[in-house]
Amino acid sequence: MPQSSQLQTPRRTSGFRAGEARTIGPAVVIVGGGFGGLACARALAGAPVDVTLVDARDYHLFTPLLYQVATALLNPADIAYPFRAVLRRARNVRFHQGTVTAVDLDRRSLATASGRELAYDYLVLATGSVSDYFGNPKLEQATLGMKSLPQAQRLRNHVLACLEQAAQLPDAAARAEWLTFVVVGGGPTGVEFAGALGELKRLVGREYPEFSSEEMRIVVVEGTGRLLPTFPEKLGRYAERVLERRTVEVCTGVVTTDAGPEGASLSNGETIATRTVVWSAGVRARGVDGIESLATGRAQRLQIDERLRLGGREEVFVVGDLAEGLPMLSAPAKQQGRYAARSIVAAVDGKQRAQPFRYRDKGTMAVIGRNAAVADVFGLQLTGFVGWVAWLTVHLYYLVGFRNRAAVFFNWGWDYLRRDRPTRLITTVDPDPVVAALTGGR
Amino acid sequence: MPQSSQLQTPRRTSGFRAGEARTIGPAVVIVGGGFGGLACARALAGAPVDVTLVDARDYHLFTPLLYQVATALLNPADIAYPFRAVLRRARNVRFHQGTVTAVDLDRRSLATASGRELAYDYLVLATGSVSDYFGNPKLEQATLGMKSLPQAQRLRNHVLACLEQAAQLPDAAARAEWLTFVVVGGGPTGVEFAGALGELKRLVGREYPEFSSEEMRIVVVEGTGRLLPTFPEKLGRYAERVLERRTVEVCTGVVTTDAGPEGASLSNGETIATRTVVWSAGVRARGVDGIESLATGRAQRLQIDERLRLGGREEVFVVGDLAEGLPMLSAPAKQQGRYAARSIVAAVDGKQRAQPFRYRDKGTMAVIGRNAAVADVFGLQLTGFVGWVAWLTVHLYYLVGFRNRAAVFFNWGWDYLRRDRPTRLITTVDPDPVVAALTGGR
Repeated sequence: MPQSSQLQTPRRTSGFRAGEARTIGPAVVIVGGGFGGLACARALAGAPVDVTLVDARDYHLFTPLLYQVATALLNPADIAYPFRAVLRRARNVRFHQGTVTAVDLDRRSLATASGRELAYDYLVLATGSVSDYFGNPKLEQATLGMKSLPQAQRLRNHVLACLEQAAQLPDAAARAEWLTFVVVGGGPTGVEFAGALGELKRLVGREYPEFSSEEMRIVVVEGTGRLLPTFPEKLGRYAERVLERRTVEVCTGVVTTDAGPEGASLSNGETIATRTVVWSAGVRARGVDGIESLATGRAQRLQIDERLRLGGREEVFVVGDLAEGLPMLSAPAKQQGRYAARSIVAAVDGKQRAQPFRYRDKGTMAVIGRNAAVADVFGLQLTGFVGWVAWLTVHLYYLVGFRNRAAVFFNWGWDYLRRDRPTRLITTVDPDPVVAALTGGR
Repeated sequence: MPQSSQLQTPRRTSGFRAGEARTIGPAVVIVGGGFGGLACARALAGAPVDVTLVDARDYHLFTPLLYQVATALLNPADIAYPFRAVLRRARNVRFHQGTVTAVDLDRRSLATASGRELAYDYLVLATGSVSDYFGNPKLEQATLGMKSLPQAQRLRNHVLACLEQAAQLPDAAARAEWLTFVVVGGGPTGVEFAGALGELKRLVGREYPEFSSEEMRIVVVEGTGRLLPTFPEKLGRYAERVLERRTVEVCTGVVTTDAGPEGASLSNGETIATRTVVWSAGVRARGVDGIESLATGRAQRLQIDERLRLGGREEVFVVGDLAEGLPMLSAPAKQQGRYAARSIVAAVDGKQRAQPFRYRDKGTMAVIGRNAAVADVFGLQLTGFVGWVAWLTVHLYYLVGFRNRAAVFFNWGWDYLRRDRPTRLITTVDPDPVVAALTGGR
């Protein structure tokens, strides 16, 4: 009876493996391969543990550049890196594509959408975040998100299709709603997308003789008093000036209350007739089925102790956007992922890790467009060309893989010299049942 | 009454334009922007006619390299070129994204899926071809095509998802159906895809520790007696030897009679258990709604006279795969597109074009894989490394646009040196209603 003999093995290994069982050490399961989960997996490479990284997608996504996929500058593959390629040399780390549908903390096991069960000795939860619509399902339905590749590609398709629709309408008044783009949320994502959309105007002027590019209207709606509310005020004001100089309208102190086919309704009573409302107003943790009851923090994040552990359990860590406390950015996620890895290695060695987790703040940056970015780093507040070069350098540096760096560098150079958007294709992908079964449709 | 005044204008212009009406000359509508349609549009640039190119997609697709998108080597944008970019400098040529749903030859007008009407003085039909399933809808349902970007991306997703499924199965017998890939049709597309899939084995061996890459089985099923039946026999035999040396199984003289979830049924009584049947067995003309009754040729192609005219009408031309007579390849399509353009210019000038169309055969090529291709050009039959270099050179040369050439060259170089497949992502695109309305869901 292989089943029962498996139950009798002294150390459980995650029993879902194809081929021979691994016997390196305790089983570590990492759920989510974003910045936190991948940093943890890489830090565990070579350690005496069997690591399984579980993700619904087969690639790590460099989300800071998603808006450049949505604005037809980069290819999806330029900012996505297959997990199996990243982890190729980490012989004790394996990848399992799937969506976790249940966590049983007492039995120490997970279930996936495809019906497989994964046992663990140590669990790292790093599922990240999704868009938050503050309880309004109508907003979710009527707006376009920018948190994943499928969403970014849809946004690209949608914007380009709106331009084509406008090109077929002889009446300027009828074109207006197709050529108006509302960006909800003036944080880094909203500012970056609106800036990039503004730069698209030049291309539109060159390639759409059917209407004037001046008819394109881009509006950023921000609920607080200024853009980039998490940045120093000086930088937020600078972003506002640059965007407005580049003909992007900035509406601050205004909340988007509703959206639908007719347009976006604002808290100041105004309604903007538009076919495009982009949602970058807020994010919340991506819940983990089975432990929702523990999600008592703000934005449905999980409360953790000073050693990133969940519910007082020694073997369950939470890192990144899912963990309450730090800003939802890549830097804290990566630091937490590496900390969780060190803690697991210490525990396997029989040592208790002494120091609680401490976040080293490296600052934040946002790009507004050509030759203009803001950076709040090392106590310096950079703007303009200097900030822009700093932004480019840091983002190229943090991209995973030489090939992606080369491809992004090539596309940026091409865009800078030619003001061209090479990936402006309206492309869909035919649905496939095997893919849906693997990812649980997510 | 603007309607009636428009009817009274001496020369009809295609009346669906946004912005001001054009008054350069008679309206030419080209349906389809493949090799034939685009060649025609480019040849009409600067001529005294108003040209409208209609296509359901917003890009010209370099179909000979589609199999490289399907095998995770190239980005979709590397082989697709936006029509508006190609036609940027052609001031008398405009692009109209849409699907033609009806043609009225007597009224000289077309209707599109989005409800718009296009009037023409000259019509060029260049809708190309689609996969032919020889009247078996089950084959269409159960197999994967490779005729469009959505299909190629689905095929990429599907193959990668099959590998991930296999990686989760501990039993080699259960893995077999996921790791068996059947390619129906041994023409250039089938040979190229099977060869590229065979080269994927090395990557699989490196990145999938869960199973042996030797478990991957690739079978090409060809109904005639040998591979590449349209090529000289020597080249077909060479392709067979090279594929078999690279562990691709070649089954000739065998027809695939059925396919379903259980696998592929062959005419020799064999059934291959597989989750992947790729269809490259045949193509037929893509029908044009409203004139199906004229499609009396083989593979539903339209019969034309020696001046490429349809049904004896002076103003309707058919070019490319849709026109009966020549092989369904890019070279005849391009030559016919340019011929139709010259004929239209002559007719507008009041001259009757004297010479009937004559095809200048430049030969054919197919690549089998790394350092191996076959070419039948200028009376020479090239194979091996020489054929491969010829294939690379010709395909780089014929790609549209410097950027696409540079990107493809970069990706080929990367693949050659690193044996890497940079775009091996399982990516979908969220559906968008504006895109569906524009393309008529096609």
